[in-house]
Amino acid sequence: MIKTAVFGYGNVGKAVVEAVLCAGDFELVAVVDNALAGQQAAGQTIKSNEEGLPPVDVAILAVPSRLAPGLAESLLQKGIYTVDGYDIHGNIPEVWEKLGKVAKENNAAAILSAGWDPGTDSVIRTLFEAMAPRGITYTNFGPGMSMGHSVAAKAAPGVADALSLTIPTGAGVHRRMVYIQMEEGADFEAAAKSIKADDYFAHDETHVQQVEDVRALMDMGHGTQIERKGASGNTQNQLFSFEMRIDNPALTAQVLVCAARAVLRQQSGCYTLIEIPPVDFLPGPRADAVRRLV
Amino acid sequence: MIKTAVFGYGNVGKAVVEAVLCAGDFELVAVVDNALAGQQAAGQTIKSNEEGLPPVDVAILAVPSRLAPGLAESLLQKGIYTVDGYDIHGNIPEVWEKLGKVAKENNAAAILSAGWDPGTDSVIRTLFEAMAPRGITYTNFGPGMSMGHSVAAKAAPGVADALSLTIPTGAGVHRRMVYIQMEEGADFEAAAKSIKADDYFAHDETHVQQVEDVRALMDMGHGTQIERKGASGNTQNQLFSFEMRIDNPALTAQVLVCAARAVLRQQSGCYTLIEIPPVDFLPGPRADAVRRLV
Repeated sequence: MIKTAVFGYGNVGKAVVEAVLCAGDFELVAVVDNALAGQQAAGQTIKSNEEGLPPVDVAILAVPSRLAPGLAESLLQKGIYTVDGYDIHGNIPEVWEKLGKVAKENNAAAILSAGWDPGTDSVIRTLFEAMAPRGITYTNFGPGMSMGHSVAAKAAPGVADALSLTIPTGAGVHRRMVYIQMEEGADFEAAAKSIKADDYFAHDETHVQQVEDVRALMDMGHGTQIERKGASGNTQNQLFSFEMRIDNPALTAQVLVCAARAVLRQQSGCYTLIEIPPVDFLPGPRADAVRRLV
Repeated sequence: MIKTAVFGYGNVGKAVVEAVLCAGDFELVAVVDNALAGQQAAGQTIKSNEEGLPPVDVAILAVPSRLAPGLAESLLQKGIYTVDGYDIHGNIPEVWEKLGKVAKENNAAAILSAGWDPGTDSVIRTLFEAMAPRGITYTNFGPGMSMGHSVAAKAAPGVADALSLTIPTGAGVHRRMVYIQMEEGADFEAAAKSIKADDYFAHDETHVQQVEDVRALMDMGHGTQIERKGASGNTQNQLFSFEMRIDNPALTAQVLVCAARAVLRQQSGCYTLIEIPPVDFLPGPRADAVRRLV
């Protein structure tokens, strides 16, 4: 059994605990969340930090992205393997290099950015490029809620709550549908103008609508379509498409749990999902997967 | 530059040579095909066998499946890394074990079954199962020509030439559309009956039609759709789909070439594609792929 600690007990952390309990080869030994310390989670009393943890094979970090690298580093220094869903694309190479160094120094391993994008979508993009080395890959997101854009919209003047939906319009181009709930007496037009001028929205087609209750529009469903048209050798017009419709926190959590299994099978270092043999995500002996899936 | 020998110069072998010449990091040093020895292929005089090969890093085996394991074994014994497109699904575990032993004894590595099914489809199935561990995956093939079924149909009495198309009807079930060209005066009804009774066709819905010229119906296009509906943790109804429309020999060849690059990056042993880190299929440093694709 893989002794597992889950850090962070928000939407994703709760789904990670569920996925850990569903997996036959994992044992949940601790849940850590400073803001919820002392509360109960799946029979565990939530701890405030990593001090006094029982022996742990792997820590699954379901914490905000900006906190993940520092936490991973401190756990790796204790020889605890880590996986996280770090999703700030532009910083991944730098964090990857840093955690790789720390992991090797401490004979441990980490998997970085183990969600769906970055994550399993990255694996699909890599595979598509291998199958047709010349060509263009488009990643289309949604329809689904964008956390980053929703937070940005909520920061506009007079906005009480906001939801930004990402709508794919093809070839990797997206429309933003922004639903905002105004504070009493606040100016909708001013808020809409401010949102459209924000750097998060200024480059996309953005529609802002006023609604009475943003919560009534919320769902955690999301999706991706990845398309590639390219050439295998000199043969043009090879067509590839991947599509999924998923519950966002549940898939993120499941990928984290599979990555937690995989990280224990790697040599010391830090890895993104494209560097992991896919068979390592699955439970059981490798020969079973070869017989069943190849 | 990866010094490469291509074994077999049929449909797939020719496409392999093309894909090798398209790749910037490969150098074609030999083409071997006993039946075509002495003829020219991309500036090479085709050799009859592996005797007297120049120094070779990797051999790409584009030979019939039943010949691949023996040839791989003899090359591995000389320390030459191999990749092949072995596609007899039921025998893969046995060949995998055998070649693994030979490869390790000779400090070499082999990639087995590096085509699209088995091959890249296997990687997709593995990834889908990781993302939603409970559920059913359906692999739907075609529309496209099945070599095995065409050969079986051609063996029926009075049949001069035959083409068997695989038509997907959903949930991994397939219809066989068989087009046969009869020998002068031969009995079509008897041939159709014999084909439908053959074990290759007896379990599927099979339609047999007589045509004047089978060659006029031939195209090398093929396709796959892989679908999975499953649960991530306790969250049901996660939907995944992969679809491709491709030139069959060209994709098989491109996957073989990417596998030839990847095999040189593995420790000694024998691997199927689900055991290879996807990034290893791509040229260039790993850090570039992490920056670009994750």
